[in-house]
Amino acid sequence: MRPITAHGMLAGLDEIADVGRDRLRGGFSRSIWSTSELQLRIWFVERAERLGLDVEADRNGNLWAWWGPPGDGAVVTGSHLDSVPGGGPFDGPLGVVSALEAVARLQRSGFIPGRPFAVAVFAEEEGSRFGVACLGSRMMSGTIDPDRVRALTDAAGVTFADAARDAGLNPAHLGADPETAARIGLFLELHIEQGRGLIDLDSPVAVASSILAHGRWRLAFRGQGNHAGATAMQGRQDPLVAAARAVTAIRDTALSIAGSRATVGRIEVTPGGTNVIPSSVTSWLDARGETAKDTRLLVAEIARLSDGLAAEEGCSVVVTEESWSDAVSFDARLLERLSSALGGVPALASGAGHDAGVLSSVAPTAMLFVRNPTGISHAPEEWAELEDTLAGIDALETVLRSLL
Amino acid sequence: MRPITAHGMLAGLDEIADVGRDRLRGGFSRSIWSTSELQLRIWFVERAERLGLDVEADRNGNLWAWWGPPGDGAVVTGSHLDSVPGGGPFDGPLGVVSALEAVARLQRSGFIPGRPFAVAVFAEEEGSRFGVACLGSRMMSGTIDPDRVRALTDAAGVTFADAARDAGLNPAHLGADPETAARIGLFLELHIEQGRGLIDLDSPVAVASSILAHGRWRLAFRGQGNHAGATAMQGRQDPLVAAARAVTAIRDTALSIAGSRATVGRIEVTPGGTNVIPSSVTSWLDARGETAKDTRLLVAEIARLSDGLAAEEGCSVVVTEESWSDAVSFDARLLERLSSALGGVPALASGAGHDAGVLSSVAPTAMLFVRNPTGISHAPEEWAELEDTLAGIDALETVLRSLL
Repeated sequence: MRPITAHGMLAGLDEIADVGRDRLRGGFSRSIWSTSELQLRIWFVERAERLGLDVEADRNGNLWAWWGPPGDGAVVTGSHLDSVPGGGPFDGPLGVVSALEAVARLQRSGFIPGRPFAVAVFAEEEGSRFGVACLGSRMMSGTIDPDRVRALTDAAGVTFADAARDAGLNPAHLGADPETAARIGLFLELHIEQGRGLIDLDSPVAVASSILAHGRWRLAFRGQGNHAGATAMQGRQDPLVAAARAVTAIRDTALSIAGSRATVGRIEVTPGGTNVIPSSVTSWLDARGETAKDTRLLVAEIARLSDGLAAEEGCSVVVTEESWSDAVSFDARLLERLSSALGGVPALASGAGHDAGVLSSVAPTAMLFVRNPTGISHAPEEWAELEDTLAGIDALETVLRSLL
Repeated sequence: MRPITAHGMLAGLDEIADVGRDRLRGGFSRSIWSTSELQLRIWFVERAERLGLDVEADRNGNLWAWWGPPGDGAVVTGSHLDSVPGGGPFDGPLGVVSALEAVARLQRSGFIPGRPFAVAVFAEEEGSRFGVACLGSRMMSGTIDPDRVRALTDAAGVTFADAARDAGLNPAHLGADPETAARIGLFLELHIEQGRGLIDLDSPVAVASSILAHGRWRLAFRGQGNHAGATAMQGRQDPLVAAARAVTAIRDTALSIAGSRATVGRIEVTPGGTNVIPSSVTSWLDARGETAKDTRLLVAEIARLSDGLAAEEGCSVVVTEESWSDAVSFDARLLERLSSALGGVPALASGAGHDAGVLSSVAPTAMLFVRNPTGISHAPEEWAELEDTLAGIDALETVLRSLL
């Protein structure tokens, strides 16, 4: 296996560089069980099998590539292959490709793992299709009700249960999987950094110290649809005006609470005609904070303001929580082992959620971040220099040698 | 032919009451050359042929049902069959069904038209699929460049030219059709009222005096896409915040100019992920005013404010005109003839655009409005009581007798 390609991209990343390209949005759209995501799964299985790993799918759609016999208390590394709509090439795949590359290096050096070891790919990490992030790890770890997951629908109205069935899973078997969870002795996720931390630190690699508390909420505004030309401005009940004022209030509220973040990245207007005052508008809020308490306060304030703004526009709003993740402090002992194996690396807080955060409820977890020279993620501009991706693999290989 | 149905709806309207129902939005979605709109065209042809009318399609997709031999200077009445997304049952079809019913009544009474007469159905009146309203009448009357129309695309990226070809038209023959236009001696459009004028006047029927100047503009905001969790609030370049602030500014500006109306009814967020700061947002502005000058001033002010708001958010905006219609004062002599035939009826200004407005450039045109007890249109709540629809047909029949 070539370690790098002529194009300056890590081998593996170049092999999938044409899968799921999004001409409309730019970047990549690889939502769970889409044609492109299924192609990535096939690519992963082939890649892992070429390394002699045994690949199995668990009952929640996650993939496990075992080096040697599976067993409890394994060292597991990996990430995800799905993307946000129009995402970058590294968010997810970098961790998977780096894991496979680290395995290849260990094999070439004659290394034999002293304990069970697997490379894992977790399903629907971004929540792009069904709205809730980290569904694969959440279901496996039993931190989300499978009845709720089965009933989640995508934009076309397809339920998670039906999509899972189409992908070859038994929807009745979705949910907590303690046997699989018990196999994770520790989980290590290498990931592209999604901010400017490593630029400022002038370092190619860091370990993660924590993840912000975060969640998603749906804001459903209702008003009175009507004709855009025949309806006087006075007395309108326009839910898009209410939702627009809420977007501004959301931003202003997040600015007022230190360390908080609040974003509306998705909005649906019904009926959506140019010459029609909308009858309803749904917007989705992504809110995060340093602590659960901060984040709950932020969202409560946003809900209160949205309610008032809707009322001022003669509309109503219903705010519904779609997902919630507590703040995570990564395992201190594991962090110490990583830091000592790597001879000291900086630690960074993560604003983004990760499967490593969800899995901290079942095993010690840790993360390695690789520098992103644009500081931009969830967008086509996301990038990693080849030198830094190699530094990431070096770090992962070193850590795996010390843990295995 | 039964004049009314057991369901309290005008015959014809009940026959099409299941065509194009929109379960998601409520009401009806009948965009041009969709399955449902094609069904309505077939229905119209069958209905007209049952009355012995000869139906022909012109080269812009409009339908003409002739009672007797076609000829120049004809009396033409009709409306459209397409709808906004999630529209009501009357906007368009009421004028077509009333025209057919008036013909049936005239025939039953033994009336013979003294000049050429046709019932017309104009294509893409709402502009729901290709963004520009009244495309059928605009093309026929030569008031829009057919090259521009051929290149218009729907939400799926299909061009008007390709859609027209699929519907059996020759895209090369789209555009000004002076032979067909010359056949219109005068055009009379009966339409559901789209406001509360007739409720306030306590009258079932009115004639139209004028149509507001109106147009559509696209506001394309660009910012910097990024991760919703990993990106601090400070220094974001979020185009949805810019677009949202513009929605509020648009409303406030329209409120500041008497008689003006401005609406954003459609907005597209790219890439549209919940955990993604958008990279671009397009919103569509529908703006109207009592005069062209007022409307131009309104839009210029909106463009100026949007530009400033975009800059404040570190974004940019480009404002593009998609369509424009001058204010219309309906033909005074024709109005007088209608009023005298009807023994005096109130006159109402129309905030909505109509084919009768576009066609005022090729012939005298007039409109009859039928009371809408909800005052709501472009929404499922749009309604007409049977008694009022019968009063509308009485008026149309009376006027046709006096004109033919």
